[in-house]
Amino acid sequence: MSFAVTEATTPTPAQLGVGARLSVAVMDSDYVRILLAALDRADASGLEISTDEISTYVGGSEIDVLRYVTQVIAGAASSSAHVSAQLLLSRGCPGEVTCDLSPTAALPAVQVSPAARTGIRAAAHWSLYPLTDGAPTRSEGLEPDHMRDIAAAVELARSTGTYAGSAHFATRLDGDLADVLSTVASGWLLVGRTVAHVTTHVTLSMNSPTTVATDGAIR
Amino acid sequence: MSFAVTEATTPTPAQLGVGARLSVAVMDSDYVRILLAALDRADASGLEISTDEISTYVGGSEIDVLRYVTQVIAGAASSSAHVSAQLLLSRGCPGEVTCDLSPTAALPAVQVSPAARTGIRAAAHWSLYPLTDGAPTRSEGLEPDHMRDIAAAVELARSTGTYAGSAHFATRLDGDLADVLSTVASGWLLVGRTVAHVTTHVTLSMNSPTTVATDGAIR
Repeated sequence: MSFAVTEATTPTPAQLGVGARLSVAVMDSDYVRILLAALDRADASGLEISTDEISTYVGGSEIDVLRYVTQVIAGAASSSAHVSAQLLLSRGCPGEVTCDLSPTAALPAVQVSPAARTGIRAAAHWSLYPLTDGAPTRSEGLEPDHMRDIAAAVELARSTGTYAGSAHFATRLDGDLADVLSTVASGWLLVGRTVAHVTTHVTLSMNSPTTVATDGAIR
Repeated sequence: MSFAVTEATTPTPAQLGVGARLSVAVMDSDYVRILLAALDRADASGLEISTDEISTYVGGSEIDVLRYVTQVIAGAASSSAHVSAQLLLSRGCPGEVTCDLSPTAALPAVQVSPAARTGIRAAAHWSLYPLTDGAPTRSEGLEPDHMRDIAAAVELARSTGTYAGSAHFATRLDGDLADVLSTVASGWLLVGRTVAHVTTHVTLSMNSPTTVATDGAIR
């Protein structure tokens, strides 16, 4: 799997609070072995990783984080077990309730290119949160409007072919796992060009025994 | 399990877009039976429920939603299998990218009281998103500040005894599953008194074979 990236040199990802929290659930009694194998095979170069019983924190550049989480989820799903994964990506506020960055800080623009396909189909519910606090939208002179920013990210998903409809509180994405995760990261980074603090959550399902189409029919 | 609620009569939860998305992952090869049994035992009165391969949408009043998701998660965890659950609560914007509610709309204040204990210990990572868009904070005349609102919810968690430290992008909560979920809902509704559109995400872990203390030591 490879990702190309265009990125300014400063500030550092750590200063911008770039990172992820990842939970991968394997619905199989052999889940410990499957998860450890997936973690063992993933490329953690350049990343700070710490795990507790709830989720794994992954800190580093956008490109490294995306590569790692894609590899871990793909590794678990390659077992053919039903896998549910929860990914949080955040940027623009390193801490929990403290944030030293100005809401109008100019964050570097970052773009991720489509990753190599994994061969694993993923279905996802995606939510995106631009946390504007009313700071003026940079570079375009627009009023803060989190729903407009979300709409722009959904348009991006349509252009990448992963968009599969809207659901309550989420956008449905379907496609190769790498394409779905690239869409999520791209939408997050798109909004991050004009809003300093942006988080996104995606819940992914792979190898589900029940495939339910977006029209609600179970097939 | 029971919840008390204080709630104004209008607008309706559907008009306010009150609801949840829930994913419950059971790390056991018998997960289908365990999940179906949990769903079968939960009280879905007053709720609109629809499921696809990724998550279950639960629409209805705050009290009904909290009762149902607590019962479903407790039911799955009572199997003793390792269970990971992902819950999204949202209020103030029914749709995906459309929102007919004014960001300054006066939403009714809702309070949930502590629920009856489940006897199941849960560990959680909790994130809260007040989506202000710069609308004036109602009732207090304060400037929008999503980090201040999050800090108030964290203070609430400290007062309930579930607060267990801060983590990257999340607050750690520990305790009886009912107390943890009540804290999450209470913080969400606390912020919802002054910000119209508020969402919250929590990732819960139960019956983990690896108990990692908040100081990072594995025990």
